[in-house]
Amino acid sequence: MMRYKLVIEYDGSPFVGWQKQENGLSVQEVIENAILSLSQEQVTVFGAGRTDTGVHAMGQVGHFDISKKELDTQTVFNGLNHHLRPYPISILAVDIVSEEFHSRFDAKQRKYLYRIINRNSPLTIEKGRAWHVFKNLDVDQMVECISLIEGKRDFTTFRSAHCQAESPIKTMESVKINSTNEEVLLGFTARSFLHHQVRSIVGSLKLVGEGTWTVEDFRHAVDSKDRSKCGALAPPEGLYLMEVTY
Amino acid sequence: MMRYKLVIEYDGSPFVGWQKQENGLSVQEVIENAILSLSQEQVTVFGAGRTDTGVHAMGQVGHFDISKKELDTQTVFNGLNHHLRPYPISILAVDIVSEEFHSRFDAKQRKYLYRIINRNSPLTIEKGRAWHVFKNLDVDQMVECISLIEGKRDFTTFRSAHCQAESPIKTMESVKINSTNEEVLLGFTARSFLHHQVRSIVGSLKLVGEGTWTVEDFRHAVDSKDRSKCGALAPPEGLYLMEVTY
Repeated sequence: MMRYKLVIEYDGSPFVGWQKQENGLSVQEVIENAILSLSQEQVTVFGAGRTDTGVHAMGQVGHFDISKKELDTQTVFNGLNHHLRPYPISILAVDIVSEEFHSRFDAKQRKYLYRIINRNSPLTIEKGRAWHVFKNLDVDQMVECISLIEGKRDFTTFRSAHCQAESPIKTMESVKINSTNEEVLLGFTARSFLHHQVRSIVGSLKLVGEGTWTVEDFRHAVDSKDRSKCGALAPPEGLYLMEVTY
Repeated sequence: MMRYKLVIEYDGSPFVGWQKQENGLSVQEVIENAILSLSQEQVTVFGAGRTDTGVHAMGQVGHFDISKKELDTQTVFNGLNHHLRPYPISILAVDIVSEEFHSRFDAKQRKYLYRIINRNSPLTIEKGRAWHVFKNLDVDQMVECISLIEGKRDFTTFRSAHCQAESPIKTMESVKINSTNEEVLLGFTARSFLHHQVRSIVGSLKLVGEGTWTVEDFRHAVDSKDRSKCGALAPPEGLYLMEVTY
């Protein structure tokens, strides 16, 4: 038996998300089919992060096992990218790893990026690749909120009702907000995230940026530990799973 | 009569280019139809640069006249962006200009950007937005060629057979090549360009980068003033008209 680790990039637009679903095509299913074409084995690919419908990845990590063949990494790299050609999914790297390695449970750190384009004009080239926010954002006010969401906290406010995590307490290692010209980039680093945590936080930070909320309102939302106090969820097209480290 | 100046962004993928054609939808035609819907006047929009099929723009400039109405810039901005909604074309700015202003003839400087993504893995999120080059590019060798194409020169080697310019002599004000991680960005600035000039130069620079040509081969191609010595044309999806200044 050989265990392979994949680093995967995808445009999430046409998919129901990473995880296999009854109701549409998932990234996981497409990759599993590519592995079947390459190896004649029906396997399960375990992903490090279950990205939602429409969420992109620049560095998703997955692992799978092959029992019947010993394929070298170059063969897996070329073969999977060949079979994935019809889809906007690309294998960036392939490694052979120990049988103990688990893409999801061994992850030490996950990095997400959220992209906002803040301007009046509709998006063209960046359509589907960022959240288009019309109202002018005061990025300094958004930056003021960073200290309220960094560190070990109860993130119930920013947690989907469907979240399967045992506890709402997570440690946000860092939040970075940078703006350049018309773009606002929000980076989030943690060992693990709750379901919808980044999009919930970004949706609330946007309310602060546009002046609908004060920084104090944001603080109250965090402190309330009440899901109903969260701002409207930011759309999936601005979210990127950037990197998973082990 | 009022003359309006537009700054225009578009994803060139679905269009036959800027200029109206019999054989498909052009950016010019779509904008002229939007102006018709807004003003009930059939006008001509004159563009600063005739981008080819599939070429993108972040800062194309156009102008047009309206005789029957006096529309303020905000009305034109909102109205055109509304009517352009089904298409990946966006109006970034609208100005009322003098009746002498001409987007094409008055342009003092045009800036083009060419994006190469240099990696083995297929493109996903950047597909259609950059040239995917597989072979590893030696960017330093490409940079060595810059001095051979800057300044006032005979650019016959890099000129399409269909070019309508009176002379192949142009002054390239600057060429900049920067690489970051897996991306190579090539910037070109000049008052005006020959047809296919940037894509011809990039196609030839790519041959130098991948080692098919030496810098001396590139020099011979330039000096030959012979179109048949040009490298294969770089594809349109990597090219962006970035800015036109007056």
